[in-house]
Amino acid sequence: MKDAIPQPQRRKPALPATVAWIPDGDGSPLPGVLRILDQTRLPARVTHLDLVAPADTHAAIRRLAVRGAPAIGCAAALGLAAACQHANATTADFLCEVRKTADFLATSRPTAVNLFWALERCVSAVRQATETSVAGLKRALLDEALAILEEDGRLCQAIGQHGLELFGGRHGAGVLTHCNAGALATGGRGTALAPVYAAQEAGLEPRVFADETRPLLQGARLTAWELQHAGVNLTLICDNMAAQVMREGRVDLVIVGADRIAANGDAANKIGTYGVAILARHHQIPFYVAAPYSTIDATLAGGDAIPIEQRNPDEITAGFGRRTAPRGCPAYNPAFDVTPHELIAGIVTERGILRPPFDAAIAALPQSPGR
Amino acid sequence: MKDAIPQPQRRKPALPATVAWIPDGDGSPLPGVLRILDQTRLPARVTHLDLVAPADTHAAIRRLAVRGAPAIGCAAALGLAAACQHANATTADFLCEVRKTADFLATSRPTAVNLFWALERCVSAVRQATETSVAGLKRALLDEALAILEEDGRLCQAIGQHGLELFGGRHGAGVLTHCNAGALATGGRGTALAPVYAAQEAGLEPRVFADETRPLLQGARLTAWELQHAGVNLTLICDNMAAQVMREGRVDLVIVGADRIAANGDAANKIGTYGVAILARHHQIPFYVAAPYSTIDATLAGGDAIPIEQRNPDEITAGFGRRTAPRGCPAYNPAFDVTPHELIAGIVTERGILRPPFDAAIAALPQSPGR
Repeated sequence: MKDAIPQPQRRKPALPATVAWIPDGDGSPLPGVLRILDQTRLPARVTHLDLVAPADTHAAIRRLAVRGAPAIGCAAALGLAAACQHANATTADFLCEVRKTADFLATSRPTAVNLFWALERCVSAVRQATETSVAGLKRALLDEALAILEEDGRLCQAIGQHGLELFGGRHGAGVLTHCNAGALATGGRGTALAPVYAAQEAGLEPRVFADETRPLLQGARLTAWELQHAGVNLTLICDNMAAQVMREGRVDLVIVGADRIAANGDAANKIGTYGVAILARHHQIPFYVAAPYSTIDATLAGGDAIPIEQRNPDEITAGFGRRTAPRGCPAYNPAFDVTPHELIAGIVTERGILRPPFDAAIAALPQSPGR
Repeated sequence: MKDAIPQPQRRKPALPATVAWIPDGDGSPLPGVLRILDQTRLPARVTHLDLVAPADTHAAIRRLAVRGAPAIGCAAALGLAAACQHANATTADFLCEVRKTADFLATSRPTAVNLFWALERCVSAVRQATETSVAGLKRALLDEALAILEEDGRLCQAIGQHGLELFGGRHGAGVLTHCNAGALATGGRGTALAPVYAAQEAGLEPRVFADETRPLLQGARLTAWELQHAGVNLTLICDNMAAQVMREGRVDLVIVGADRIAANGDAANKIGTYGVAILARHHQIPFYVAAPYSTIDATLAGGDAIPIEQRNPDEITAGFGRRTAPRGCPAYNPAFDVTPHELIAGIVTERGILRPPFDAAIAALPQSPGR
């Protein structure tokens, strides 16, 4: 093991909530707004957006003001509740309005399954509500969205506890992660970062190597920011340095999040994850995916069926406030890739760590109540 | 093979010279200046720097205004001639001045062997000059530096011709490259890009995928710029997209440059190259290194002995004119890595393509006249 990278000695105050529901003020939960931490401004500025109109929530998800598969699910659910709270409609019209708004919000991003899952769960809750007044349905919708948010916090906690097992009690283990699958990506303390936080609380002092994660630098802007706040030992690297850091013996395990997991264990995650998995395999370092069970899309046999979002090439050629490539330079910008199950040592869920063969392990899991 | 990425239809005017000697004007080569294209300003601005003082040449190399192993060698040699042209000294003192200035310029960067090789060649030329007047020695020094520059152009041409073999006559082959080992990195048309230019001239219309190459974006700023000028089909990607592009079947071969090659074929090159080599191996894509014979440092048995430059972490955390990571965030910034010979399918030199086992192939090569 090489010497650790020198660390500043400090611990910052607790993070603001990534996604929250803020009532307007008289003590009852309705009316209210969806409040999100605007992640496009981090780390330079900590600012919030209060959202009600569905177009605003859609745009916020689309432009990654809120991102991370679980957080997108929470934001979409609360955004649906916020959008429908002022509907002036009959019960039948209200159901129609909820359906239409959910369908619209579902078009904000294509890859993360949690978005569709959370919206469908809210629509079902309204349909199945025992209360049939419009006011009651609005409350049932909000309650379901709040339940998703609250559950997400518990799921993250459970993922962290199960993931702690990966450290095997080892002190100072090196953990490489890609993108941000932490508190900023969820309604809780994260998926990939939850085991890191659990290890930190257990006194194991993990050392995290965070890929900066081009083009949008979620690793540099978000993972570094939240780990710094938590006082976790952290070293930022460019994505292309992961192989070298592994070769130097600094990495004991890799943990990443996921946006969708197929029935065979193939996992879609931020572009670059697949490459990290290959590098980990080459260096005989175990590669883990951490995600709530709701990320598993058992309707897809394999990862080839997961739709991959293609984003604007300007994110690559002019992503830092100035052009970094010549004008007219063609660029290719897939936002995700799929890591085949063969490269994955385990999938850390709130119900335990799934091990290969994943198809059998996934099929054996009891169905989630929300699915 | 997937559909090609759409390309703009145009071809730009020829590139300005990366490194040149500009006489002051009366027809004789001395006095003069070392003129370099300031690559830190590309692609936004095409500007030159005229250098005479050794501190200025040292700084220009250090801050990558001129970079790429062969170009550094050419610039250092001409910079040495420029620095010593105004020496007011006896013959013995002049030799001492040349030695001292060469030793100083050699401290500008640690990894590329061409820097040391070119400077030593110039020092030897002065020592062995038949002319013994100081004026004659100044001219001998400049002539040797100009010979290195002129030779580099021919070496690049020869590397291109030998490298053309890698295409096997295939039309539209996908070539992935990392960093810039093109005209901007040499005194000619490049090393890794020379076979691409040769294939383009042969009507094979290669399709190049250029890694942007964090942290300093030589791929985005330099490779994209020079390939666009040459009308070569080009797609810029982030470094972390290389695995996905390979998986999609878009890459038929990888060609990269090198800053130093050990006697066993281990090759140091821009950070990230080692990872690309692993990804290529995983996808069964041949990985080639292209470099002049002067890049081979036969004094080093293996790549572990190659010194790796560590650069300022600010290049990662604040490299685009604004901070992209929180203040105080530790970062690790090795500028190079070493690709072990086992991952290299061939080394394209001006004398032909070396194939494994490289130690035998390298030992069998006749010694370069300059070494």
